[in-house]
Amino acid sequence: MTKGIKIVTIGGGSSYTPELIEGFIKRYDELPVQELWLVDIEEGKEKLEIIGNLAKRMVQKARIPIDIHLTLDRREALKDADFVTTQFRVGSLDARAKDERIPLKYNVIGQETNGPGGLFKGLRTIPVILDICKDIEELCPDAWLVNFTNPAGMVTEAVLRYSNIKKVVGLCNVPIGMRMGIAKALEVDPSRIHVDFAGLNHMVFGLNVYLDGVSILDSVIDSMADPKNEMTMKNISGLAWEPDFIRALGVIPCGYHRYYYKTGEMLTEELEAAETVGTRAEVVQKLEKDLFELYKNPELDMKPPQLEKRGGAYYSDAACSLINSIYNDKRDIQPVNTRNNGAIASIPADSAVEVNCVITKDGPRPISVGDIPVAARGLVQQIKSFERVAAEAAVTGDYKTALLAMTINPLVPSDKIAKQILDEMLEAHKQHLPQFTQTIKA
Amino acid sequence: MTKGIKIVTIGGGSSYTPELIEGFIKRYDELPVQELWLVDIEEGKEKLEIIGNLAKRMVQKARIPIDIHLTLDRREALKDADFVTTQFRVGSLDARAKDERIPLKYNVIGQETNGPGGLFKGLRTIPVILDICKDIEELCPDAWLVNFTNPAGMVTEAVLRYSNIKKVVGLCNVPIGMRMGIAKALEVDPSRIHVDFAGLNHMVFGLNVYLDGVSILDSVIDSMADPKNEMTMKNISGLAWEPDFIRALGVIPCGYHRYYYKTGEMLTEELEAAETVGTRAEVVQKLEKDLFELYKNPELDMKPPQLEKRGGAYYSDAACSLINSIYNDKRDIQPVNTRNNGAIASIPADSAVEVNCVITKDGPRPISVGDIPVAARGLVQQIKSFERVAAEAAVTGDYKTALLAMTINPLVPSDKIAKQILDEMLEAHKQHLPQFTQTIKA
Amino acid sequence: MTKGIKIVTIGGGSSYTPELIEGFIKRYDELPVQELWLVDIEEGKEKLEIIGNLAKRMVQKARIPIDIHLTLDRREALKDADFVTTQFRVGSLDARAKDERIPLKYNVIGQETNGPGGLFKGLRTIPVILDICKDIEELCPDAWLVNFTNPAGMVTEAVLRYSNIKKVVGLCNVPIGMRMGIAKALEVDPSRIHVDFAGLNHMVFGLNVYLDGVSILDSVIDSMADPKNEMTMKNISGLAWEPDFIRALGVIPCGYHRYYYKTGEMLTEELEAAETVGTRAEVVQKLEKDLFELYKNPELDMKPPQLEKRGGAYYSDAACSLINSIYNDKRDIQPVNTRNNGAIASIPADSAVEVNCVITKDGPRPISVGDIPVAARGLVQQIKSFERVAAEAAVTGDYKTALLAMTINPLVPSDKIAKQILDEMLEAHKQHLPQFTQTIKA
Amino acid sequence: MTKGIKIVTIGGGSSYTPELIEGFIKRYDELPVQELWLVDIEEGKEKLEIIGNLAKRMVQKARIPIDIHLTLDRREALKDADFVTTQFRVGSLDARAKDERIPLKYNVIGQETNGPGGLFKGLRTIPVILDICKDIEELCPDAWLVNFTNPAGMVTEAVLRYSNIKKVVGLCNVPIGMRMGIAKALEVDPSRIHVDFAGLNHMVFGLNVYLDGVSILDSVIDSMADPKNEMTMKNISGLAWEPDFIRALGVIPCGYHRYYYKTGEMLTEELEAAETVGTRAEVVQKLEKDLFELYKNPELDMKPPQLEKRGGAYYSDAACSLINSIYNDKRDIQPVNTRNNGAIASIPADSAVEVNCVITKDGPRPISVGDIPVAARGLVQQIKSFERVAAEAAVTGDYKTALLAMTINPLVPSDKIAKQILDEMLEAHKQHLPQFTQTIKA
Repeated sequence: MTKGIKIVTIGGGSSYTPELIEGFIKRYDELPVQELWLVDIEEGKEKLEIIGNLAKRMVQKARIPIDIHLTLDRREALKDADFVTTQFRVGSLDARAKDERIPLKYNVIGQETNGPGGLFKGLRTIPVILDICKDIEELCPDAWLVNFTNPAGMVTEAVLRYSNIKKVVGLCNVPIGMRMGIAKALEVDPSRIHVDFAGLNHMVFGLNVYLDGVSILDSVIDSMADPKNEMTMKNISGLAWEPDFIRALGVIPCGYHRYYYKTGEMLTEELEAAETVGTRAEVVQKLEKDLFELYKNPELDMKPPQLEKRGGAYYSDAACSLINSIYNDKRDIQPVNTRNNGAIASIPADSAVEVNCVITKDGPRPISVGDIPVAARGLVQQIKSFERVAAEAAVTGDYKTALLAMTINPLVPSDKIAKQILDEMLEAHKQHLPQFTQTIKA
Repeated sequence: MTKGIKIVTIGGGSSYTPELIEGFIKRYDELPVQELWLVDIEEGKEKLEIIGNLAKRMVQKARIPIDIHLTLDRREALKDADFVTTQFRVGSLDARAKDERIPLKYNVIGQETNGPGGLFKGLRTIPVILDICKDIEELCPDAWLVNFTNPAGMVTEAVLRYSNIKKVVGLCNVPIGMRMGIAKALEVDPSRIHVDFAGLNHMVFGLNVYLDGVSILDSVIDSMADPKNEMTMKNISGLAWEPDFIRALGVIPCGYHRYYYKTGEMLTEELEAAETVGTRAEVVQKLEKDLFELYKNPELDMKPPQLEKRGGAYYSDAACSLINSIYNDKRDIQPVNTRNNGAIASIPADSAVEVNCVITKDGPRPISVGDIPVAARGLVQQIKSFERVAAEAAVTGDYKTALLAMTINPLVPSDKIAKQILDEMLEAHKQHLPQFTQTIKA
Repeated sequence: MTKGIKIVTIGGGSSYTPELIEGFIKRYDELPVQELWLVDIEEGKEKLEIIGNLAKRMVQKARIPIDIHLTLDRREALKDADFVTTQFRVGSLDARAKDERIPLKYNVIGQETNGPGGLFKGLRTIPVILDICKDIEELCPDAWLVNFTNPAGMVTEAVLRYSNIKKVVGLCNVPIGMRMGIAKALEVDPSRIHVDFAGLNHMVFGLNVYLDGVSILDSVIDSMADPKNEMTMKNISGLAWEPDFIRALGVIPCGYHRYYYKTGEMLTEELEAAETVGTRAEVVQKLEKDLFELYKNPELDMKPPQLEKRGGAYYSDAACSLINSIYNDKRDIQPVNTRNNGAIASIPADSAVEVNCVITKDGPRPISVGDIPVAARGLVQQIKSFERVAAEAAVTGDYKTALLAMTINPLVPSDKIAKQILDEMLEAHKQHLPQFTQTIKA
Repeated sequence: MTKGIKIVTIGGGSSYTPELIEGFIKRYDELPVQELWLVDIEEGKEKLEIIGNLAKRMVQKARIPIDIHLTLDRREALKDADFVTTQFRVGSLDARAKDERIPLKYNVIGQETNGPGGLFKGLRTIPVILDICKDIEELCPDAWLVNFTNPAGMVTEAVLRYSNIKKVVGLCNVPIGMRMGIAKALEVDPSRIHVDFAGLNHMVFGLNVYLDGVSILDSVIDSMADPKNEMTMKNISGLAWEPDFIRALGVIPCGYHRYYYKTGEMLTEELEAAETVGTRAEVVQKLEKDLFELYKNPELDMKPPQLEKRGGAYYSDAACSLINSIYNDKRDIQPVNTRNNGAIASIPADSAVEVNCVITKDGPRPISVGDIPVAARGLVQQIKSFERVAAEAAVTGDYKTALLAMTINPLVPSDKIAKQILDEMLEAHKQHLPQFTQTIKA
């Protein structure tokens, strides 16, 4: 390409955007972004302008010729794009707060990407993503869709099954966070740590860990089994694993596994938080408000350090790094969400998985892991079943299918409670679930 | 074979035995049993004698030359056997009562074959079955092992993985009960109903139902969705399914699926029962006591009708029918537990499944079903993972592996509670868990 | 069904038809055929009338109320049919003679269903079958298509991949012939012999053989290894196997395997025959001429014994038996060509295989065999690859794809010779290959 | 490792060794080889000394402290080795000449790694490799075995199935040769070309080709379809592909595919060569003689340019590069022979394949390719079947299994000719087939 790169970021008004800008600035020499289009919707117009102005100041300070465009017209932005990144949130943090609060009324985990909350985030998000896919097909058919909108696994599954887009990668900061956490715990440079990731989004395991190529899995597990010394992630509970359980499991779970292997304790913790500091969405709403106040400051021309508290660390770095490797055919290894293609034996070849891939200009190529250990496998398979039914419900807007997804979710204790939660959440989110309009009435 | 058939029934003092005797008597013309050895252990001696005497009276009345032998010496009995049936209960109903009561203390389902109770029944039973397999290898290597000791799926899995016995079939009355229930609901002769069974033991689905070869699946599901008209089984709860859930599932669950799809309600019901009528084991203990009083009556020379209340209906009929089809190479179709061999796509080929098979003299041949629907699949895969880890724990006596099995069981809410239940149950059952002696101390 | 059965036989003027009539007459009590429509094309009109008159005499003699209809109008016949059987030959025996003679010029096997001849039979037949499928969809969507037109495996593959018809079964007399041959060699009633068939059409293996349910595989192989005592089939060479080869193979090949495991000798034999008695088609042409002379005789009111010399023994019996089992939901076991569905591990689940199935009203259900032995497997997989490419060539009429199919066929020695044979055969058969008209010119 | 690397090269007296030495010298900075042990057998003593002296001169000239050890005592050499490379030839080129000449008598391809010749090379080589594996287990259990002894695919299969060694990689120069050939044809730097390799050793396909990450597959195939412009390899025939065949195949075959897709022409060419210049082994014998004369020259202190004519180009470079990537955990991509592990869908997970891998300190990790196109797949599967049976014959020394392998090889026209060739070759090679001694007599 002699022309510079055109990148479109849908949900450009997100508080994460400054990190993305920083990432593009840092990599400009090898990844010459010429146009960056930040797209948002009417409700996000104010934020988009705040972010857009900050972005322009950052670029100016770096003396880099990236043109920043702000628009509410997605189709205008998409024309001839090279990369489309998605980081929007249908219904904003208000919707997430409902995803968290409503299930808790029924003594069920309320969480952004797991349980009923994850299902509803999928129901709201998937139709929008599929609309974007149609626009991409028409307006920039050669573009790569780099999705970091959650639930990223379910979204990637839906795009693989229900769109004509082949060039899609789902991205998450959980694997990179695990790697960084291990490096930090060992006090070594992260580049010396390699982890064999395999599983699903927010359900990924580290099957092995290497320091300079030599397995250190056992000692990492030992340190995780030591309650004083474990690795965790900012936006989920730091509850310690039962030492003998984690030793017998023999692989490294991610933080979100706690919702399944420590359901009881996580629920207790959520209920307490909901009555005191608020749910995670409510906490984040405050953080975001403060962040946007900072962003408004016309003196600010860099990513403020406060952003790192927001959660989502490494997200944008992961995204820039992925785009860079695709653009430059780097053939390095990154964990992403993509079509399994046989890499994990017990997941269908045509399903989305989160797995280490070689990143090429032609997309990610998953590295075969054979299989994940038998004890870890069943839960992964069950969540994959759930994700597929959830994606179908999102696409069809069929009430019964949504109830099926809700009931088979392992965090939901019964078909009856599933129906109660479903009905309340359908009502609460109806503004963002146009596909269910008919079935809700019926 | 010119010689008559030798059958050995381990756990011969069971209250079910009279039904088995009745089955052999009925089929004598095509299945000429010459010797029936009823084997039990010292603690079961009295029951064995009661049953043995009743059996002799039944045979005498039928004027059929079956020799009934009673013995506490298993190895003496096994010599040159043609079929070995297993229907014993390690630790008797007292142990089952603990399996039911202890988890309830932790607000966890207490059940014979599911959850912590199922795990412990497996831990107690599998080593005994594997000992029997070694005896069979030595004393009657051509015999078929027909297991109806629960948990039959886990037991079959363990025999396939950890013994040298190839001739093993696991048997359960759930599928036949489902078929009979449908026939009864439709008021047709059961021979006109055919069900495509596939899944695991106590986790089997009816993928389709036929009346005279024509699918009636939709109308059966409709009637299950009608709370006034559903089909159920005597020994588990009759709670009705959410109509829209069962319709969306699109296949027929078995009664035990309620523990997973209605966990909350089942737990409530169990807790109430435990405080009032007692757990199922406690109820059965009373029924059994009454039954044995009946059996003692020297005038009784037939299976008393009261046995049918005991649960386990069709069990012995299923066993006799299976033995008959093997012996006579009938090549009819029966649902049994056997090596999957590709019949169900998403279960490993070398794992035990419950599936329709053609029954030949050379054993069951599973009929390919392709796959079970995606919504039903994940739970089946998860339980299979659990069963494999549980079997490994039973064989190795490794504490950590047992904790792993307990934690990944979908009815157990956390690793911490898993450890508490595990520790209490290991202590309670230590007499019947010799393989754990060292690890319990350590 | 209260109405009687309507059967449509496409290619009704075939010399095999009297056997089919006999089959329906024999089974009338359980399979009450009310209408039998014999359909043929203009060129076959005379034969159709001869056969039709004989059929009417046979039915009359049997005093059975089957209405025999003769027509050249396929669509008229298909209306509301219950079963459609296909036994036509596009281009008649003249075309087959070309399939046999042309390859021989290049020192390549010339055979009806294998090598270049098999490919061209597929190219001629598949488009006609797919047309029939479209008519069935429209005129009798509930009908079963029972295909015995060769190459039956390739045809079934094509119907599964390129039509909307689900109710299709491919039928061949090879397995039944093998079973009958074994029974005859052992001088036992065929009902006592069971063979585990698995593979592809004309490439099926007997994985095991049972007499009264007990394996006699080793002794059958021993007798096949004895050149004086082998089992064979009338319409292919009787060349003996190398004893040590057949012993090491460990399964029973069908007669057609000789084209692959004895290519050299088969070619020599074919070349000799072509110069003396003529190719098989030429021999059959004479036999057929004589048969039709017999059939014309207005005194003849039964299947003449001379038909058995024709080859194709058991074909019609297999067809009647299959139709009977479907109609009456017999759930007996028959080897047919159907969707694999996991029954044979190393063949894709969605490909056609020839395998033992339980025959139900809802169609054949394959019995899982796990896998065929490694030594036998590779050839089966290679032929399946060929069949799929051949079917694609037949459907698309693409010259390059046809060349690809010809070249990868293991009987064709090189891409260059493949092109020569392809070009000559396309020219020779152009009348029956309308889909290639453009590419042939281009 | 603070200690330097110890490398053992079995078959150190090979004419290829100078290239290996050159490779280690070039890479010394990142791959500090401290000891290089060249091992050979008594018959190779003279060559070993010639090579050893040249190697010492090369190292001396480069002023690199690699200690060169020459020995006939393999076990002494293996002690504590880090890498073991194998490049020996059982029976030397004399045996290869027999592998080439004997089949030609029967009008069958005589070739080093394909057909009867490949089978016998496997029969001679595999037992020696398995002996080396046992020594490695005992003397240097952490060492990597890097095998470039042919037939490398069959050898890797045998090591995976019949030894306890897990750290084994099979290596071949065919893929690198294809990549280099493409680069040369396009006149671009090879580093800009990437090929997706998948298949088996000497049966590998280029599924796609990229220039700077952009697919150029179609234009590469176009140029291969142009007889004036094709890419080939020095040691096999340069016969051109049928343009329409190669276009329809849609992937890039390797040179050895000509033995299967152009069997007839290759045979003709071999027969002509055998009568004129001699078989390939005979030609190479002369080349080698000249090379060793050059090597003897005490002035020579570098790899002489004449070596490149020998064939085997890039072999040693591939080996050094592989060792380097393992040692330094480079995680770059190289095509090697390793356990499939699901990377190629239609080959068993536990079989050896040749496929692109990420090379880590922990060994190669295959990159999932999904599947190879259906037309190319069947032949690959058939050769894999052959390789497995051949490996079994090599290990067991069973005559019947050897006959089975010979017969199912697609280059052998019949079981009868298979037996004739087998018998003659067993006799001719009996000195190097100790495992067959008994069966040959019997």
